[in-house]
Amino acid sequence: MQERNILKKYGESFSEWFEWIIREAEIYDYGRYPVKGMGVWLSYGFKIRRHVVELIRLLLDGTGHEEILLPLLIPETLFRKESEHVRGFEGEVLWITRGGHEELDVRLILRPTSETALSYMESFWVKSYKQLPKKYYQIVSIFRYETKMTKPMIRVREVTTFKEAHTLHEDFSDCERQVVEAIEIYSRFFDRIGIPYIITRRPQWDKFAGALYTIAFDTIFPDGKAIQIGTVHNLGQTFTSVFDVKIQKRDESIDYAWQTSYGISERVIASIIAFHSDERGLILPPIIAPYQVVIIPIPHSDNAIFKMINEYCDKIANILMQAGIRVYIDRREDMKPVDKFFEWELKGVPIRIEIGYKEIQSGIVTVFRRDTMRRKTVGVEELIQELKRCLDEISYGIELRAWSWFKSNIRVINKFHDASKIVKNEGGIAILPWCGNEGCVHKLIESEEGIEVLGEVYKDSLARLKIELISIETECGFCDKKASTFIAIAKRY
Amino acid sequence: MQERNILKKYGESFSEWFEWIIREAEIYDYGRYPVKGMGVWLSYGFKIRRHVVELIRLLLDGTGHEEILLPLLIPETLFRKESEHVRGFEGEVLWITRGGHEELDVRLILRPTSETALSYMESFWVKSYKQLPKKYYQIVSIFRYETKMTKPMIRVREVTTFKEAHTLHEDFSDCERQVVEAIEIYSRFFDRIGIPYIITRRPQWDKFAGALYTIAFDTIFPDGKAIQIGTVHNLGQTFTSVFDVKIQKRDESIDYAWQTSYGISERVIASIIAFHSDERGLILPPIIAPYQVVIIPIPHSDNAIFKMINEYCDKIANILMQAGIRVYIDRREDMKPVDKFFEWELKGVPIRIEIGYKEIQSGIVTVFRRDTMRRKTVGVEELIQELKRCLDEISYGIELRAWSWFKSNIRVINKFHDASKIVKNEGGIAILPWCGNEGCVHKLIESEEGIEVLGEVYKDSLARLKIELISIETECGFCDKKASTFIAIAKRY
Repeated sequence: MQERNILKKYGESFSEWFEWIIREAEIYDYGRYPVKGMGVWLSYGFKIRRHVVELIRLLLDGTGHEEILLPLLIPETLFRKESEHVRGFEGEVLWITRGGHEELDVRLILRPTSETALSYMESFWVKSYKQLPKKYYQIVSIFRYETKMTKPMIRVREVTTFKEAHTLHEDFSDCERQVVEAIEIYSRFFDRIGIPYIITRRPQWDKFAGALYTIAFDTIFPDGKAIQIGTVHNLGQTFTSVFDVKIQKRDESIDYAWQTSYGISERVIASIIAFHSDERGLILPPIIAPYQVVIIPIPHSDNAIFKMINEYCDKIANILMQAGIRVYIDRREDMKPVDKFFEWELKGVPIRIEIGYKEIQSGIVTVFRRDTMRRKTVGVEELIQELKRCLDEISYGIELRAWSWFKSNIRVINKFHDASKIVKNEGGIAILPWCGNEGCVHKLIESEEGIEVLGEVYKDSLARLKIELISIETECGFCDKKASTFIAIAKRY
Repeated sequence: MQERNILKKYGESFSEWFEWIIREAEIYDYGRYPVKGMGVWLSYGFKIRRHVVELIRLLLDGTGHEEILLPLLIPETLFRKESEHVRGFEGEVLWITRGGHEELDVRLILRPTSETALSYMESFWVKSYKQLPKKYYQIVSIFRYETKMTKPMIRVREVTTFKEAHTLHEDFSDCERQVVEAIEIYSRFFDRIGIPYIITRRPQWDKFAGALYTIAFDTIFPDGKAIQIGTVHNLGQTFTSVFDVKIQKRDESIDYAWQTSYGISERVIASIIAFHSDERGLILPPIIAPYQVVIIPIPHSDNAIFKMINEYCDKIANILMQAGIRVYIDRREDMKPVDKFFEWELKGVPIRIEIGYKEIQSGIVTVFRRDTMRRKTVGVEELIQELKRCLDEISYGIELRAWSWFKSNIRVINKFHDASKIVKNEGGIAILPWCGNEGCVHKLIESEEGIEVLGEVYKDSLARLKIELISIETECGFCDKKASTFIAIAKRY
């Protein structure tokens, strides 16, 4: 099975492969910048990031979210207002204590997230239910002083691509509606970039500091570990009550507003890299590929002919651009075509077009598909149609392959000790029947080092995974009570 | 003269007006966030910012610049490597001294600019003249612990929209070529958003800390003060020699590479607001307006007719969108059309379309131009053509008006004491004949509080300003030597 091969191929050395590919493909330079947990987005990587950010914006703008930008620095006085939040973040914030040659009166933190800064401003902005719901978002750097081992894009001290959305509502039920909307938006987002996921409700001991509850999206990396790639929090009135965000309600009474927040980070880009790749390098989803097509002119010993070849490349590139396809002509003179092929295969360009004298003579081009590694010739008059079909097939194909591998790494297992053994040996996620009592899970999980709870599996997610649940006995996997739902466990990043 | 009126109208209270308009038009919330010199970009302002950023990207990507993203934090050890640079910035950097509960071993600064961070990385990236020139840029927040009075977007502690470009070259002459390219790019950029400018070479005492020399773009604000809106630095080998960025040259010798850097900030957005406005609010240049056209449906007592009106609005909006025009239908139900008119005039939407029953019956729309405040009716079949013509006229008109006002505030004056008196009383920029010796200027400027040197006026800039230079005597405005060039002075932000 091809799916198994991927897991084996990256195997124990997935981290090593990951660090190699992101540098080699000029995505992200990590480990050389002299601050632990901070890296540099390189030109090609930044272009991927641009398209990912544009996709996020499209989905959020289209659902009535307003993009804003809050200050990076939060004064200690604001940060300390909500005690549960402080407890959750205090151990990992970076502190500014000096400005120029002066000691600061009020110390400042670099935002680890923006609930406190925004709630403070919302107390000025929002007065009436008529203004609600309000949906804000920003795409910014956040900072966490990680003490665990850092990993590029995955566990860093500067998360340079953090999209945080924050919403305000009249009541609890509208918060609940917003949580559903957020889950739909993220599902659509991950579907568009072909990243498979499982949706769970985190146990209380693992929710966001200050939330009523947290819903999380996790995927599985080739090393078999689960990784959180998105979260949605129902914040209730935690922050609005502390920051005095009061609204006049429909019945003219005054009450604190209700909030949700939800975030995704550059871990989605790490996921694209982890999933959409093979032994030759990346296979980028066309929707976020910096170039969807690269054109390579094949040199010719006759200069006049080579000039014609280059002009033909221009002509083809123009036709593609007019059709809305992102195209790049690689004209580097000091490099053989075969080396260019190799480089663009590594960088994951979905389609390569080769144009030499033969192609000009016959009014064709040679089209190479990165996912199948197959070449064919296509007439110019049918080129656009053929390329669009190929790009669609590539998008669909890599999504299908990713989901198929993901599903093959999710197993339904009846009892915790069997499940934890299998997860330890084979990786992936185990789903167990569950009585719904977090106490019975917490006790057993604590005793098994390296295994963690993802949470109660969201119903739609079970359906999407099409997991065979019929054979499950009705006893909880952690105690002898009757099971009423399902819970997921895994090794985690 | 209309131009004079603008200066008078904002007069002494320009600051007040500016703070009022940016909050009222929902651009930037300033003065309420509890950290001095930091504000919040609001939704409408963020959209303006997005289009400004896209325009910058278009111009830089189109000239071979690569967008990257460096870490925000620079370790003290890196920052301290270049002594002149440290002296220039030390008094105004923010220091991180703690992470979580730990004291940091190496303190970190928030980037005030990125020459040190990037030069360090370039020592890994660049090895040969074959890779050069290299042109990088990033659009990021920078931090300066301003001790002067802060002003929104103009003098802040977090500059949230700082575009810094950094280039690498084989030799000095290629640096000089790059300086010219940078000046051309910025000129094109300011021309596209209709901001007039004068280009000067800053005196040595006012150059960027670490540069061989600095070229600056200044404009004039309605209060008569000059404001720096862009700078271009020839950095020579200052940073490459300290950070060991060595390259193999054409003749196979090894030498340090050469650098330039150039930056613009959100002051360009402040300039758009300052220039393109009148007593009713903003008049945004169509190229960066969040909405180029707003459609207001005019309510009707008959619900069936009002439904038709709304459908007609949809139809018109679709036609506009297909023609690439950014359009918004303002359907708010609890607001009278006249209040909507007022709000969108304040927010500077270039064109408003009003659609009521009358318009449907005759197959027309009513088109209102923000710049002339005039209405006319246009047939649907000629609408797109008419709108595009109007948008072009508005763009051209506001640029023309801005330059005309700017020129009327630049005066050629022979002697320093006359010039400084006029600048003090009337504001604007004075241009004086000059011998070219910075010493004679420095002494006199020091004695005149509030007057500063912009620098030697760039030749092309003199030509662009079409200033009458014939009548100038050939004696320097500061001493009795012979003048060989021109220098500009002003009150400055």
